[in-house]
Amino acid sequence: MSNQVEEFNAYRAKMNDKLLQDNNKIIKRIFNLDTNAFAAGALDVKTKELLGLVASTVLRCDDCVKYHLESSYKEGVSKEEIMETLGIATLVGGTIVIPHLRRAYEYWEELENTEG
Amino acid sequence: MSNQVEEFNAYRAKMNDKLLQDNNKIIKRIFNLDTNAFAAGALDVKTKELLGLVASTVLRCDDCVKYHLESSYKEGVSKEEIMETLGIATLVGGTIVIPHLRRAYEYWEELENTEG
Amino acid sequence: MSNQVEEFNAYRAKMNDKLLQDNNKIIKRIFNLDTNAFAAGALDVKTKELLGLVASTVLRCDDCVKYHLESSYKEGVSKEEIMETLGIATLVGGTIVIPHLRRAYEYWEELENTEG
Amino acid sequence: MSNQVEEFNAYRAKMNDKLLQDNNKIIKRIFNLDTNAFAAGALDVKTKELLGLVASTVLRCDDCVKYHLESSYKEGVSKEEIMETLGIATLVGGTIVIPHLRRAYEYWEELENTEG
Amino acid sequence: MSNQVEEFNAYRAKMNDKLLQDNNKIIKRIFNLDTNAFAAGALDVKTKELLGLVASTVLRCDDCVKYHLESSYKEGVSKEEIMETLGIATLVGGTIVIPHLRRAYEYWEELENTEG
Amino acid sequence: MSNQVEEFNAYRAKMNDKLLQDNNKIIKRIFNLDTNAFAAGALDVKTKELLGLVASTVLRCDDCVKYHLESSYKEGVSKEEIMETLGIATLVGGTIVIPHLRRAYEYWEELENTEG
Repeated sequence: MSNQVEEFNAYRAKMNDKLLQDNNKIIKRIFNLDTNAFAAGALDVKTKELLGLVASTVLRCDDCVKYHLESSYKEGVSKEEIMETLGIATLVGGTIVIPHLRRAYEYWEELENTEG
Repeated sequence: MSNQVEEFNAYRAKMNDKLLQDNNKIIKRIFNLDTNAFAAGALDVKTKELLGLVASTVLRCDDCVKYHLESSYKEGVSKEEIMETLGIATLVGGTIVIPHLRRAYEYWEELENTEG
Repeated sequence: MSNQVEEFNAYRAKMNDKLLQDNNKIIKRIFNLDTNAFAAGALDVKTKELLGLVASTVLRCDDCVKYHLESSYKEGVSKEEIMETLGIATLVGGTIVIPHLRRAYEYWEELENTEG
Repeated sequence: MSNQVEEFNAYRAKMNDKLLQDNNKIIKRIFNLDTNAFAAGALDVKTKELLGLVASTVLRCDDCVKYHLESSYKEGVSKEEIMETLGIATLVGGTIVIPHLRRAYEYWEELENTEG
Repeated sequence: MSNQVEEFNAYRAKMNDKLLQDNNKIIKRIFNLDTNAFAAGALDVKTKELLGLVASTVLRCDDCVKYHLESSYKEGVSKEEIMETLGIATLVGGTIVIPHLRRAYEYWEELENTEG
Repeated sequence: MSNQVEEFNAYRAKMNDKLLQDNNKIIKRIFNLDTNAFAAGALDVKTKELLGLVASTVLRCDDCVKYHLESSYKEGVSKEEIMETLGIATLVGGTIVIPHLRRAYEYWEELENTEG
C-alpha cells in the first residue's frame, strides 16, 4: 500500500480500537450502525458507498472521504463514477469543496497505484 | 397536486424565473450546471437523484430535499430506497437531521397522494 | 399549553410515529440512541440537556433547540442557566446564531406561560 | 413598508429588546460588537455591508440576509452589486444557497417597492 | 508536557499574541468575551467547559476541542464525563464527527500522560 | 517565496491540473466560473476578493482563505483592511473561526515577507 493509504488506515484502526475499548455505549452503537447502514438492502452496496462519499464530501470531512473512496474502490467503482459523484458534491456544496476534491483525487490515485 | 407540493413548485418556478431574467451570468450558469450534473452519465439518473437527495439532507436544505424527492419520485424510486438514503443521511449528519426527516417524510406522502 | 408549544409537539409526535412505523432499522436505532444518550450517567440529566441545547443552537436547528428547551424546563433548569448556555452558543457559533436566539427566547417564554 | 419587511423588523425589534433586557452580559456585548464591526473604518460601510451579506448568505441565515439587504439598500447599494455579491455566495457556497437566493431576491423587491 | 500538547499551546499562544497586538478592536473584544463566557456564573466552570467542548465537537473544530479538553482536564473532569460529552456530540453531529473523536481521544491521552 | 506560500501554490497547481485534465464537465465549468465570478463588474476586483475572503473564513476553509489572501495581497489590499474583514468573519462565524484566524495571520505575514 502507498504511504498515505497505509498511514490513514493504521491511525484509523488504532484509534477506533481505543474508542471501542473505552466502552461508551453511545459511541459503540454508532460505530455499529455505521456498518449496518452501508450493507446491501433496497439499494446495493456500491450505491450506498457513493451516497456515503457525496455526503462526506459536501460536509467536507477528508477522513470520511478517504474511507468511502477506499470502500468504493474495493467495490469496483470506476474513476468516472467517482468523478461524477464528486462533481455533484462540488456543485451542491460549492467551491469550498475544491480543496477536498484535490485531496480526494490524490488519494484515489494512491489507491490505484497500490498493488497487493 | 397536494397543496404543499403545488405551493413549493409555484414559488420555486416564479422566483427562479426572476433570478434568471436578472441576467447575472454566474447565477445563470450555476442553474445550467445543475441541470447538467443530474443528467445520465457514468451513473444513471436515479443514482444521481439519490446523491442529490443525500447531499441536500446532510446539508439540511429543506427545499433542496423537496426538489430531489420529487425528481426521485418521477424516476420511480421506491419509498424503501428513499428511506435507506435518508437513513444514511441521518447517520452521517446526526440527529440534527431528524427535523428535516419529518418534513421529508410528509412531503413524500404528499407526492404519493398526488394523482394526476 | 401555548399554541406554539402544542403545535410543535403535536407535529413532532405525529411524524416521529410515522417514521418509526416505517421500520427503517437505521432510523429506528438512532431514535433509540437519542433516548439513551440523554439519560443519567457520569453526567446528570440536567447537564446533558444543556449539552444537547448548546449543540442544537450552534448547529442552528430550531426544532432541536425547542426540544431541549422543553426537556430542560421540565428538569427545572433556570432561565439564567438557559441564557448562559445560549450566550456560549452565540459566542462560539457567531452572530448567525442570533435569529435562533430570538426564537428560543420566545419559546422559553411560552413554556413559562404554560400552566398545566 | 411591505408586509414582509415590516413583519421581519417588528419581530426582530421586539425579541432583540427582550434579549437585551435579560441582561446576559455575553449576549449584550455581542449585540454591541455587531454595531461596531459594521461601522466605517479602513473599509467603508457599504463594503462592510456586502461582507456581512455574503457571509450571511453562505451560512444560509435568511434573517441575517434580510438584515444586510436592508442595510445595503439604505446605503444605496445597487441591485447589480447585490446580485454580484449573491452570485459569489452561490458559487462559493453551492446550489444549497439557491433557496436562500430566491427569498433574498423577493425581499429585495419588497424593499424596492417600499416607499416611505 | 507531551509533544502534541506543547506544540498546540506554543503555536496558539504565539499567534494569539500577534492577533491581539494587531489592535483590531472587534477581534480583541471577542477574545475578551471568550474569557468571560466560560467564567463561573449560574453554571459552574466545569459545566461551561463541557458546553464549550460539545459545541466545538459538533462544529468539528479540532483546535477548539483541544483547548476545551485541556481546560476540562485542569478542572478535574473525568474521562467518563468527557466520553459522555463526546458521545452526545457524535449522536447530534453524526458520524462525520468520528475523525475528530479519534483526535480528541488521542489528545486526552496525551494530557493524562503529561506529568508536571 | 516563503516555504508555506510556495508549498501551497505548488500542490494546488499540481492537483488542479490533474482535476482539469480528468475532463469531468461539471468540475471544469465550476473552475471556470470561479475565474469569472471574481473579475471586475459592478463591484471591483478588490471588493470581490474581500467577499471571497470573508465567505471562505466563515466557512472555515483554510485553503480558500490562503487563496484569497494571496489574491488580495496582489491587489494591494492593506493589512488593516484584511483585519477588518477577518474581524467581521469572526463576529459572524463565532469563535470557532479563531483557529483559522491564526493560520490566516501567519500566511499573511509570509506573503509580506516574500520578496520576489
